[in-house]
Amino acid sequence: MDRIPILKIGPALLVTIQVDLHDDVAMALEEDLGNRIVKSGAKGVLIDISALEIVDSFIGRTLANIAGVARLLDAETVVVGMRPAVAITLVELGLSMPGIRTALDAERGMAVIRARIAEVGTADDHVVDKR
Amino acid sequence: MDRIPILKIGPALLVTIQVDLHDDVAMALEEDLGNRIVKSGAKGVLIDISALEIVDSFIGRTLANIAGVARLLDAETVVVGMRPAVAITLVELGLSMPGIRTALDAERGMAVIRARIAEVGTADDHVVDKR
Repeated sequence: MDRIPILKIGPALLVTIQVDLHDDVAMALEEDLGNRIVKSGAKGVLIDISALEIVDSFIGRTLANIAGVARLLDAETVVVGMRPAVAITLVELGLSMPGIRTALDAERGMAVIRARIAEVGTADDHVVDKR
Repeated sequence: MDRIPILKIGPALLVTIQVDLHDDVAMALEEDLGNRIVKSGAKGVLIDISALEIVDSFIGRTLANIAGVARLLDAETVVVGMRPAVAITLVELGLSMPGIRTALDAERGMAVIRARIAEVGTADDHVVDKR
């Protein structure tokens, strides 16, 4: 398996991480996600990490990079399904994951993205009204 | 990785198959899916196989089993993301996958499930009207 599949569901792109993120897989994922955001106009990226028992600093950095790329392309990243033990490890590693939103599961993550679209939609309308 | 994550998205459960389905992983997936359908009341199961370059008779049978279990629990299974080469192999193997619906991608698969819910909803209303 060289590439992690990216699924378009509603307004979001969904990625389920099930395998160890080696350098090349992580880089391919970042690149693929960037391309798919541009191509699909998705406003959100849901990353499910419920299968991961361990999140080391490399995975933490990869998630932060993905969120950074997505933000520049006007999409919000929500990490879902984090196990409590993983959260503890991340805090112990000093990785507070700034700029990454989390939600308990995919359904709640999707709600976060929809809420953000509703907000941004209102803001855009406001700008248009002012012109 | 011992279990494949199952995500609840809207009215459906979503499974992305990225790893080789060994006996124990496949059995755990069937069991987990059955439990989640009952617990969540999901009306559909989306199985993304876009990461699979090869679908052998074991995987074909596993998908058929999942669809069979889901059907008994009143949920429709839609397999999405099948590669053309995989479709050719399945036909050559004589696995026509009866009872399994397919869709080109997750978004179209979700539409199939929503359409089915709309249909069933109408049928139920009709029965209620007759009483």
